[in-house]
Amino acid sequence: MQKAITKANTLMEALPYIRTFHNKTFVIKFGGNAMIDSSLSHSFALDVILLSYVGIRPVIVHGGGPQIGELMERLGKESEFINGLRVTDQETIDIVEMVLVGKINKEIVSHINANGGKAVGLSGKDGGLITAEKLYLNDKNDASKKIDIGMVGEIRSINPRVINTLDTHQFIPIIAPLGAGEDGETFNINADTAAGEIAAALNAEKLILLTDVEGVKNSRDKLCSTLTEPAAEQMIDTGEISGGMIPKVNCCCKALQNGVSKAHIIDGRIEHAVLLEIFTDGGIGTQIVHE
Amino acid sequence: MQKAITKANTLMEALPYIRTFHNKTFVIKFGGNAMIDSSLSHSFALDVILLSYVGIRPVIVHGGGPQIGELMERLGKESEFINGLRVTDQETIDIVEMVLVGKINKEIVSHINANGGKAVGLSGKDGGLITAEKLYLNDKNDASKKIDIGMVGEIRSINPRVINTLDTHQFIPIIAPLGAGEDGETFNINADTAAGEIAAALNAEKLILLTDVEGVKNSRDKLCSTLTEPAAEQMIDTGEISGGMIPKVNCCCKALQNGVSKAHIIDGRIEHAVLLEIFTDGGIGTQIVHE
Amino acid sequence: MQKAITKANTLMEALPYIRTFHNKTFVIKFGGNAMIDSSLSHSFALDVILLSYVGIRPVIVHGGGPQIGELMERLGKESEFINGLRVTDQETIDIVEMVLVGKINKEIVSHINANGGKAVGLSGKDGGLITAEKLYLNDKNDASKKIDIGMVGEIRSINPRVINTLDTHQFIPIIAPLGAGEDGETFNINADTAAGEIAAALNAEKLILLTDVEGVKNSRDKLCSTLTEPAAEQMIDTGEISGGMIPKVNCCCKALQNGVSKAHIIDGRIEHAVLLEIFTDGGIGTQIVHE
Amino acid sequence: MQKAITKANTLMEALPYIRTFHNKTFVIKFGGNAMIDSSLSHSFALDVILLSYVGIRPVIVHGGGPQIGELMERLGKESEFINGLRVTDQETIDIVEMVLVGKINKEIVSHINANGGKAVGLSGKDGGLITAEKLYLNDKNDASKKIDIGMVGEIRSINPRVINTLDTHQFIPIIAPLGAGEDGETFNINADTAAGEIAAALNAEKLILLTDVEGVKNSRDKLCSTLTEPAAEQMIDTGEISGGMIPKVNCCCKALQNGVSKAHIIDGRIEHAVLLEIFTDGGIGTQIVHE
Amino acid sequence: MQKAITKANTLMEALPYIRTFHNKTFVIKFGGNAMIDSSLSHSFALDVILLSYVGIRPVIVHGGGPQIGELMERLGKESEFINGLRVTDQETIDIVEMVLVGKINKEIVSHINANGGKAVGLSGKDGGLITAEKLYLNDKNDASKKIDIGMVGEIRSINPRVINTLDTHQFIPIIAPLGAGEDGETFNINADTAAGEIAAALNAEKLILLTDVEGVKNSRDKLCSTLTEPAAEQMIDTGEISGGMIPKVNCCCKALQNGVSKAHIIDGRIEHAVLLEIFTDGGIGTQIVHE
Amino acid sequence: MQKAITKANTLMEALPYIRTFHNKTFVIKFGGNAMIDSSLSHSFALDVILLSYVGIRPVIVHGGGPQIGELMERLGKESEFINGLRVTDQETIDIVEMVLVGKINKEIVSHINANGGKAVGLSGKDGGLITAEKLYLNDKNDASKKIDIGMVGEIRSINPRVINTLDTHQFIPIIAPLGAGEDGETFNINADTAAGEIAAALNAEKLILLTDVEGVKNSRDKLCSTLTEPAAEQMIDTGEISGGMIPKVNCCCKALQNGVSKAHIIDGRIEHAVLLEIFTDGGIGTQIVHE
Repeated sequence: MQKAITKANTLMEALPYIRTFHNKTFVIKFGGNAMIDSSLSHSFALDVILLSYVGIRPVIVHGGGPQIGELMERLGKESEFINGLRVTDQETIDIVEMVLVGKINKEIVSHINANGGKAVGLSGKDGGLITAEKLYLNDKNDASKKIDIGMVGEIRSINPRVINTLDTHQFIPIIAPLGAGEDGETFNINADTAAGEIAAALNAEKLILLTDVEGVKNSRDKLCSTLTEPAAEQMIDTGEISGGMIPKVNCCCKALQNGVSKAHIIDGRIEHAVLLEIFTDGGIGTQIVHE
Repeated sequence: MQKAITKANTLMEALPYIRTFHNKTFVIKFGGNAMIDSSLSHSFALDVILLSYVGIRPVIVHGGGPQIGELMERLGKESEFINGLRVTDQETIDIVEMVLVGKINKEIVSHINANGGKAVGLSGKDGGLITAEKLYLNDKNDASKKIDIGMVGEIRSINPRVINTLDTHQFIPIIAPLGAGEDGETFNINADTAAGEIAAALNAEKLILLTDVEGVKNSRDKLCSTLTEPAAEQMIDTGEISGGMIPKVNCCCKALQNGVSKAHIIDGRIEHAVLLEIFTDGGIGTQIVHE
Repeated sequence: MQKAITKANTLMEALPYIRTFHNKTFVIKFGGNAMIDSSLSHSFALDVILLSYVGIRPVIVHGGGPQIGELMERLGKESEFINGLRVTDQETIDIVEMVLVGKINKEIVSHINANGGKAVGLSGKDGGLITAEKLYLNDKNDASKKIDIGMVGEIRSINPRVINTLDTHQFIPIIAPLGAGEDGETFNINADTAAGEIAAALNAEKLILLTDVEGVKNSRDKLCSTLTEPAAEQMIDTGEISGGMIPKVNCCCKALQNGVSKAHIIDGRIEHAVLLEIFTDGGIGTQIVHE
Repeated sequence: MQKAITKANTLMEALPYIRTFHNKTFVIKFGGNAMIDSSLSHSFALDVILLSYVGIRPVIVHGGGPQIGELMERLGKESEFINGLRVTDQETIDIVEMVLVGKINKEIVSHINANGGKAVGLSGKDGGLITAEKLYLNDKNDASKKIDIGMVGEIRSINPRVINTLDTHQFIPIIAPLGAGEDGETFNINADTAAGEIAAALNAEKLILLTDVEGVKNSRDKLCSTLTEPAAEQMIDTGEISGGMIPKVNCCCKALQNGVSKAHIIDGRIEHAVLLEIFTDGGIGTQIVHE
Repeated sequence: MQKAITKANTLMEALPYIRTFHNKTFVIKFGGNAMIDSSLSHSFALDVILLSYVGIRPVIVHGGGPQIGELMERLGKESEFINGLRVTDQETIDIVEMVLVGKINKEIVSHINANGGKAVGLSGKDGGLITAEKLYLNDKNDASKKIDIGMVGEIRSINPRVINTLDTHQFIPIIAPLGAGEDGETFNINADTAAGEIAAALNAEKLILLTDVEGVKNSRDKLCSTLTEPAAEQMIDTGEISGGMIPKVNCCCKALQNGVSKAHIIDGRIEHAVLLEIFTDGGIGTQIVHE
Repeated sequence: MQKAITKANTLMEALPYIRTFHNKTFVIKFGGNAMIDSSLSHSFALDVILLSYVGIRPVIVHGGGPQIGELMERLGKESEFINGLRVTDQETIDIVEMVLVGKINKEIVSHINANGGKAVGLSGKDGGLITAEKLYLNDKNDASKKIDIGMVGEIRSINPRVINTLDTHQFIPIIAPLGAGEDGETFNINADTAAGEIAAALNAEKLILLTDVEGVKNSRDKLCSTLTEPAAEQMIDTGEISGGMIPKVNCCCKALQNGVSKAHIIDGRIEHAVLLEIFTDGGIGTQIVHE
């Protein structure tokens, strides 16, 4: 009985959060270890289902991960990267699309639906959700030149109608970050960026990026649990934030500028990371907030 | 962090129940110690708010308790009982109505609203909710005679429209068990009975009676955690269930016969009794089920 | 037959008013003799029902009257007044709430429902309708001091959602003028003030105050049938309006400033006073209008 | 003031009827003197507007009257009748349609709208409201022969969708009794019959036929204020009801058989005949009721 | 089979237009030869039905034409014109109304409904659609004088509620250009003007005027297939556009100024003129566009 | 101009079909050559868009085709078939899912959206659309044994909610025929069967199977343009229908038994085959109808 009472008290501690976030939209970027480790991806699926049942509206955007590389390799296709971006010829984009939409997206949908949720998988091409155009890299040696790395795209516009349609009927949208060009061609989109722009288009309460690190750390390697947007940008300018964390922080800052209330960079390697972030006072990882 | 993870796991254990009871109506009779003890009534208010936020539709019917007797006494009005029923002249029904509607009902509403819920108090007279007529007792000595005990009523019909109206807009109805006679006169109604009939009229998933005992006990004084409706009725026939428990069990059985899925007699002296009943496998107290 | 034709003609005379006020909200403060005299309160109930059937939306706010004093006295509780306001300790506010919500409100609801209307009683605490805070009186002798007269409140905000919910489903809201403080405590609110602020929150067409006088009279004791808001305020400044009429006129003026179209101070001692005001050209009592 | 109070009392007497007929549909056949006499048609327009404002749903079907004959004559077209039915060649039906739809219907619409109602004129051809086919008369001399009297039709089906569309948006439908044949040709339909069938299709509460007589009279020339449907049919069989009253009574009986609650044959020569029928206990004319 | 494939290709060519105009409103003035020639009016009815089935919302305003003159003549009533406007005494307006509403309007409705559409005829008097006032002509000889030509009206306001009601339920409104004065009197309105103002009130995509000429021609008698609004106005100023074309072009320009996207003056003498205009690249006739 | 008129006439010929099929659902199985040949798949996309714009509700189920085999081969995975069914181990089902969902489905979606439609791709696993279980083959040699061919499934139930949700908001659902087992595992489903069962679940007007033959032929190799369901079944019994046509005809017959109005087996090798079937009198291929 004592155990039961402890349980009841725990539910009670969640009540203020449930109340606050009722009917709010959370856009969650799902990627990294959380997506590969079966125990983590199981706990993630349950977190998402719980959110949807307590009246929060989760929208999931997932990344790609090692499965793309694996299939590339099996098909004897060499991976080439420029500035950390995969050079993506037509054959590569086909492989990317098959893995993202036909494998990873479906695994997430299966996981959620087998546990009682009602997920529906979408590609950014479905219902005109993501319109994209070719991304050209700047050539560091020659400012007048642009480098073409193939079917890598940047987002031109988001049409959230299909998300809203599903959401209104209590389906949970799971989105593969691909976009359609003007002639229907497929572009690969960075998943963090897609999550940020979708969060902005939906006026989301929270943008949550699951990563494989604890959060944003300062120069003394200490986790920053809260950063204002200007502070975060300054840390990029001063080099305190560096490497792969830069685009993630930039993505959060842009989302905040476009109407999202809070952005979070959290550690997806912890079970139930999403719940912990949402339902505890301290939260986990780093939150970036309006000044 | 470990504590947080335990917390997340507890939330996860609640998920199957939240899923099962989503959009279902629970009619809860609130009375006894739970209503008098301020800590218990606080925990009850939180339970109700939590239910409403996770998508369950709570409808509360409350009893009267000692406050009626207190005011009677202060006003120098003697209480008289026949067969356990208060003889209720016009002055008494006025006092009963003032205490039930103007004091107890409002305390419950205040408690819930001060903690973030959206309760609305109703008397059975509001919106034609409970239509009643005079209850006559049988005279044990003379079968041809009926005993008039004043403004004590039995329910003729329930019109749940005002409950549904409030419920659809996410208000939590808190109901004082009074009914209106044909000419607008006020009748006092037994709160368990009112809860049972309202549960039937709403096609509720559960009827939950909060009491001051552990539940239904058998002849060896052992708590019965589950009883089928016929078994419960047989226990009344054989005298195993006796005294004040008889009308409560009868009320549960009648509700089951009229479309309610399950009825529960639970111990309101335990904090968060409602949550414990709903969100644990074993539940607490006694559940009475269809055969 | 001639009688019948006269009757038809009378209905016809009402048509222009019915047309004009279709779908408009009228907030009516019910109090004074009209509430005590059974014939007057019967005629008032019928007026309200008729309004609701011809497509006008009545919202009733009622006062307290002698019944509070009576119960105080029976309970041996002495009444104390400062500046005409009842000093209201915790015991007093409990008595006030029991009488307002559990007796007077319910009598009005019963009256209307027994005659075919669909009234639902509300306290300002239900559904967060009236949020209040403690009212401090100025100490005339010492400007730096405030006098605490207990649980007498002033309105901080009106949340009309529960009224609109009931109204949309053709229920008639009957409101007891109590408000909830931040921690759920109960405050007694002046009924005229509550009616005025609710009228403003609902963008009502009319605010009608039933009183025990003919209306506003000028210095020659002549009834003013129409006053502009500035004229009314000037009459207060010049002392032409005095005593208990001042707060009523102030309340009307404030309602007009906050979006109500017209305010009326009428004589509740006349049977069907509300109908007479609404369905005759001259109206009765005093109307206060925008300049 | 006394006059005003009498007025209020009169409104009060109407309340029970308003309550009873709230949201009910009344189909009213408007014809005869009421349509020609400008004072009567003015009072009829006001009656209809009042009904619509107090929550009753009036649907008007009008007849033709002398204006058709007048235009026929002015155009040098001779009128010919067989069994009281106008022989209707193509030129005649054109004249009938112009007068019914372009003159009489529009006068009724104008009258209502100029007095604050929201009428919309319809022909039975609009929106597929009345589908008709040619009516052949039996030849009394030769049972094997049928007499063709041209574009006189009988109703095959009613599609009330356009009425319901207008009604839901509080427009008052005014219907000219013409029907469309399979190829779009126009048929003239008896207005009483059209009213009866439309009342049945709408599940109307009342069918009211305005006539130029007091009502149905028995063999001693005494007005029958109430007749059961079987009694009315028997009176036709025994010849007590005769002449032009036969089709009217038949029409009422058929409407009752098809779901209408009550049918009335009333004297349209009395001002406000419709109001008198609806808002007085005795009513006027003859009501035919289910047994 | 080849024929079938050609057919499929033709449908395909229509697709881009169907897509572009989906859910858009087209107000079409129907008049001239198209209304008199039975083959043309048949093809017009089919065009309108097709538009409504492919998701375009047609609203038809029709003119009068020779039928008014014919009936005038048959009734021995002389026609008199001042500045091209018919002098319209009370008898004349009655004839105009009978012909427009009772004959022409009904023929169009019949035509559409017999071919599977769902048309509903309206006069501008129905549902308060067109409010009008008397039009006075300027006296050329005496600027201080106005010439009264009777019941010829100009539009004061359009209330499109009845059109929207019908439209929402997929009925096709067919409108006779009459308006109601303040006291319900009938005014004859120019049909082009009525179409233009209705198009503006509905925020129509297109205003299409069917005429008996090819379109607007320039001084070398060459058809202008596209004109900007300023260009069209200049051509009026320079006299290049003259005679009966002036009011039509003015009407188009005014509609464009009031929110209509494009206006078209097309040749109603061609079968399926409306379809040809809408579903071909070149269109037919003259389109007038925003600069 | 003559060409334009021919065009208008062609549109007119389509009108009766558009009218008849308005708001009806057509489930179309897309497969075979039509899916591989880029010109055919372009014409198919346009057909689907046109249907959706003229008010018909297309639902597309697509097959797999050679692309699965190609990827199998490239990955060095040998294809094995028993009774024409692919033996499907876990690696194979992953490949099947990637190709069906991540490649073929997305190509169809792209095609439709790039041409102005609003398609959304679904797998049968999304939103719980197709629940499946393992299909066991009968062992011809040993009736007591079942052959396990891996993740090939048969349909247990269809939950059309996600289709209806998309459909109501005018999205066109494109469905890959995969189903989810009880534990979320993926099953490959025959596309014809999936189309037939979805058509039944949606109460579709038509089931259309695109094939690589002209239609059903009789023993003299003559195309049967119409077959009743019993006739079709008899032709299977007598062997007149044989080979791969048997399951297609069975699928059609079952759909008819479960509420679909008509089933069609048509030649997908013809451009605009769907349009030709729907918008011509003769149709193409074979239609199977209720007796």
